[in-house]
Amino acid sequence: MTSLGPGASDGNASGLEMRELLRRLYPICRSITGDGVRQTLALLQEVIPIEVHEVPTGTRVFDWTIPKEWNIRDAYVQNARGERVIDFKRHNLHVVSYSVPVRAAMSLAELRPHLHTLPGQPDLIPYRTSYYKEDWGFCLAHRQLQALPEGDYEVCIDSSLEPGHLTYGELLVEGASQQEVLISCHCCHPSLADDNLSGLVVAAFLARQLARISPRYSYRFLFIPGTIGAITWLSLNEERTSAIRHGLVLTCLGDRGNFTYKKSRRGEADIDVAVRHVLKHSAREHRIVDFSPYGYDERQYCSPGFDLPVGCLMRSHHGEFAQYHTSADNLDFVDAASLAESLEKLLAVVHVLEHDGTYVNLNPKCEPQLGKRGLYSATGGANIKPLELAMMWVLNLSDGTSSLLAIAERSGLPFALISDAATMLMQHQLLAPVRPDTMPAQPASRAAQ
Amino acid sequence: MTSLGPGASDGNASGLEMRELLRRLYPICRSITGDGVRQTLALLQEVIPIEVHEVPTGTRVFDWTIPKEWNIRDAYVQNARGERVIDFKRHNLHVVSYSVPVRAAMSLAELRPHLHTLPGQPDLIPYRTSYYKEDWGFCLAHRQLQALPEGDYEVCIDSSLEPGHLTYGELLVEGASQQEVLISCHCCHPSLADDNLSGLVVAAFLARQLARISPRYSYRFLFIPGTIGAITWLSLNEERTSAIRHGLVLTCLGDRGNFTYKKSRRGEADIDVAVRHVLKHSAREHRIVDFSPYGYDERQYCSPGFDLPVGCLMRSHHGEFAQYHTSADNLDFVDAASLAESLEKLLAVVHVLEHDGTYVNLNPKCEPQLGKRGLYSATGGANIKPLELAMMWVLNLSDGTSSLLAIAERSGLPFALISDAATMLMQHQLLAPVRPDTMPAQPASRAAQ
Amino acid sequence: MTSLGPGASDGNASGLEMRELLRRLYPICRSITGDGVRQTLALLQEVIPIEVHEVPTGTRVFDWTIPKEWNIRDAYVQNARGERVIDFKRHNLHVVSYSVPVRAAMSLAELRPHLHTLPGQPDLIPYRTSYYKEDWGFCLAHRQLQALPEGDYEVCIDSSLEPGHLTYGELLVEGASQQEVLISCHCCHPSLADDNLSGLVVAAFLARQLARISPRYSYRFLFIPGTIGAITWLSLNEERTSAIRHGLVLTCLGDRGNFTYKKSRRGEADIDVAVRHVLKHSAREHRIVDFSPYGYDERQYCSPGFDLPVGCLMRSHHGEFAQYHTSADNLDFVDAASLAESLEKLLAVVHVLEHDGTYVNLNPKCEPQLGKRGLYSATGGANIKPLELAMMWVLNLSDGTSSLLAIAERSGLPFALISDAATMLMQHQLLAPVRPDTMPAQPASRAAQ
Repeated sequence: MTSLGPGASDGNASGLEMRELLRRLYPICRSITGDGVRQTLALLQEVIPIEVHEVPTGTRVFDWTIPKEWNIRDAYVQNARGERVIDFKRHNLHVVSYSVPVRAAMSLAELRPHLHTLPGQPDLIPYRTSYYKEDWGFCLAHRQLQALPEGDYEVCIDSSLEPGHLTYGELLVEGASQQEVLISCHCCHPSLADDNLSGLVVAAFLARQLARISPRYSYRFLFIPGTIGAITWLSLNEERTSAIRHGLVLTCLGDRGNFTYKKSRRGEADIDVAVRHVLKHSAREHRIVDFSPYGYDERQYCSPGFDLPVGCLMRSHHGEFAQYHTSADNLDFVDAASLAESLEKLLAVVHVLEHDGTYVNLNPKCEPQLGKRGLYSATGGANIKPLELAMMWVLNLSDGTSSLLAIAERSGLPFALISDAATMLMQHQLLAPVRPDTMPAQPASRAAQ
Repeated sequence: MTSLGPGASDGNASGLEMRELLRRLYPICRSITGDGVRQTLALLQEVIPIEVHEVPTGTRVFDWTIPKEWNIRDAYVQNARGERVIDFKRHNLHVVSYSVPVRAAMSLAELRPHLHTLPGQPDLIPYRTSYYKEDWGFCLAHRQLQALPEGDYEVCIDSSLEPGHLTYGELLVEGASQQEVLISCHCCHPSLADDNLSGLVVAAFLARQLARISPRYSYRFLFIPGTIGAITWLSLNEERTSAIRHGLVLTCLGDRGNFTYKKSRRGEADIDVAVRHVLKHSAREHRIVDFSPYGYDERQYCSPGFDLPVGCLMRSHHGEFAQYHTSADNLDFVDAASLAESLEKLLAVVHVLEHDGTYVNLNPKCEPQLGKRGLYSATGGANIKPLELAMMWVLNLSDGTSSLLAIAERSGLPFALISDAATMLMQHQLLAPVRPDTMPAQPASRAAQ
Repeated sequence: MTSLGPGASDGNASGLEMRELLRRLYPICRSITGDGVRQTLALLQEVIPIEVHEVPTGTRVFDWTIPKEWNIRDAYVQNARGERVIDFKRHNLHVVSYSVPVRAAMSLAELRPHLHTLPGQPDLIPYRTSYYKEDWGFCLAHRQLQALPEGDYEVCIDSSLEPGHLTYGELLVEGASQQEVLISCHCCHPSLADDNLSGLVVAAFLARQLARISPRYSYRFLFIPGTIGAITWLSLNEERTSAIRHGLVLTCLGDRGNFTYKKSRRGEADIDVAVRHVLKHSAREHRIVDFSPYGYDERQYCSPGFDLPVGCLMRSHHGEFAQYHTSADNLDFVDAASLAESLEKLLAVVHVLEHDGTYVNLNPKCEPQLGKRGLYSATGGANIKPLELAMMWVLNLSDGTSSLLAIAERSGLPFALISDAATMLMQHQLLAPVRPDTMPAQPASRAAQ
């Protein structure tokens, strides 16, 4: 593959493109099924050739069943003067997702149990769903609720909940190997920008970058409704999961917070070490959190029957910022620079995965004489150069048990330097891969020739 | 078994009962043999049906021999005016335990080598013993010694050291399993309240609580003289030690200090994890110390030929508080609330041992749909409830390798919540024990029905 | 062997002797080959009977070839007035080591690429070498370079680079066992006092101390040129390396800094634990650093084809102090007290290696009765003595899996106390070695009888 190291992304340009795509995706009313998902995938197809799958209502997927398809056209609460005091057309968060159709007149007292607010954040509309229990409701700012006078209201939810399909998108960027890296993001949230339009656009642009090169691994991208989508894919593709060597769930990648990485259930899988390594060698503060079975679709990928090495990359941690699952997770909350930086970090992680491997030193007894091969400064007595030091580390630890990533970790040197050192040592017949079939199809530097 | 969780003890009432029993035990002059031990066990029998064992002098127990039995009626040092300047009747710490009979007149200079004081704590009487070397002596406050005028004194120790028995108490509270939890405390100290009347009364009340329910494990309580008693029991019951799954030595449980747990020699035995877990989830500061081969009878239980998983629970650490082994370890130094809290912590540890087990998730591929079973809130988008989160953890980690206690530790959630989650999941056929024979005879919740 | 514990060195006297020997070694112009090495070994032979080896130019040693032998008689840069502005006779650092012969007139501009300075330390002469690329050069203070007027200069290096030999010294102090401890130091630096005349003299005096006793291990001392010397010895003695149980590279042992220990590649080899233990129980601050494949000859000993348990003991860490590889690493930079303390620490490490071993408690069930053997204070109730506590630890952990050093580490007690306790327990038939052949030929205390 061609270069994927730091700076491989086209930076600002990608950031602005991603931000623009996110802006177009924002108004769509998505849920776990329905036309919102289809419209979303159609917009993403402008960037990458996503394959759209439709799974019929009623299909059994492990312990679950594909639910009815939900679509909505309009919804409002209207007062006696005919004014819409709550209006889905103004913000699609106003309707509880999967609300059944309603058309009724009722007093505020009767309506109240169906109204959801956030008393602690009185200006924000909360995000609420009722996927698996037939119900209906409205979400609104607490101040708005407090201002509603008693009296009679007309309630309308013009939705449908009928047999149909669950829709999801999938894209395989084929690499030299059939071993796969899984990139998964949820496409089921309505107008919430960071969670998870940011994940969708960053995943789409990552796929576009990968499709332009010839990666070593194959990369499978899933754009799926949360929980039921991951369960559906795993149920329909169970035999494919054994090919997954590494994986990441992407969410909350557009806000301005520091990066957060939630480790896989295994805790020390290669993907965990790779992401930690990349974040450690960035100049920025960041946070590594342990796996927990609560979160996004890593819950399914890391269920004990699969236990896949899948972590979750975020900037701000879902559920821990004030805007989370409210109307404040809007277009102002995300920016082009943050999206671009998220993409850059992912490319750096991909660079590690692509170039990692385990080698053996072909001259294991004492150091080889690097100087006579032009690999070492001629003048002794002064300090060693970083690449020379990296070669020393690769030679010393390449006894067939340590991967380049492990060598980078033990040495404290950045992976890219260790990888470059390994390439130079291979070019001089001082190093060889342990298992040729698991190595990069082409060494990093040859592709650049 | 019925509920043994936090609050299972009847709290204040037990504390006052324990304090009252301790008050009655305090004046008795105990040693490693003799009638003091018999009187002590008789008082404890008012609470629980302890079986009293008598082992004859001269019996070989491993490297040791049961010593002669020691009893004492009176002892004093009397001045020329016939006044008792040191009087055993005023405090039984005044006599070195196991002092041979003496009746002699001597000068203060001749007497002095037999007088033990604490110059650094000049108002306190020290506790001294001479079990295995025939000797005699008196202990007194250093100020008292300084005030003694030169001159002639009459010395009397009206003791006997003759063939007899070593006495100890034992109680087996039978549970569903023949696997045992060992609770051991030493009954050989004279008027020292915290060390170890507190251990005796807390152990007795713990046994009373356990006898009222049907525990899973059998609980063996030993009320034995320190060192020689544990060696005697181990020597006479060597074949029983293989049934001991967990164990605790109890001492210093009546003072007002924070809890201290000294780990077993193994360091990460289940009992070590269980006690650490309980203390960590209490609101109080506490201290976990590593095993050392100096202390109380964990020295014997953890000797390399046995290496039993036995730790030591204390409040203040023996040997590290100013009152230790002095007349200041008196009735004022212990109180009902501390005794009650110690019992409560032990019950919480017992609760963990009783309900721990290893399970398998019967729906290991992806999460089961908890909502359709009424185990999960219907409205999505808001925060998860603690019990739901606990169910997620149990499901995710129950692959047959992690016990509930290990799940509690990894999740950071309290064991009781994890245990309740496991019970609910079993009731819904989502979870099953790995090895049925090692599981609780009845799951926690069924007993409460 | 006779006592080697703390204080075994004769302290000040050795320090002054070492300092005096170092003073005589300082003016010699050493390099990786040549007469400077021979003169150095000849001076060291006044202390210990080093065997001198000569390996011919052209000999293949693994990936390397023994280079031509380099000798130098004179070298200078002379200005138009016939004044030597740079003069090898004033300081042998003025010539780049291995400079080929030169005799030429040239302008300052032509000369300048051959002049090495340290702009950041403008008063110091740097140390530079060009062993494997035929070149020549001068080193000088940056201020001196700045003061050189433009103009023509006469350049002379009266050196020879011709077929000859690589010279190194070796000494085997034979012990009871054929298993070896390797002590290696480099003898190739010209007038640099701390790096590494300090290593040479401390090694020589350590060998002298060991030769006076009958050690358990055999001790192999190597006085070799850096890198090529270690490679040469390993290449010519490959079959001997399997006897090496422990090893240390010695350098920078004469400065006044705190001790630094660089661990072997294995990281937790016995030598690593032993040195860490000794430094931890000294009153001084010290630093333990992880292995890295950059440094001195531990690079070769720890190459993956050998992976010997060899660490590196220093005071100040090479490369990290301002004087390193400059003319400021002179006689003022080292002192007798520091050399003496370094020797003393090495003797303490040797004491650990000599007396370490793994034992079994012959009375593993409960504690043996130490009192009846006179090993325990008769009066109970008061605090235990350090040696008694050490006996408890040895008894408790001697189940055949823990060495005395491991027991010392777990207990927090100094090794010497643990070792004394083991000796006493063996004398009372309470302890026996696990594998007699790996134990000290004579127990520590018997030798003292």
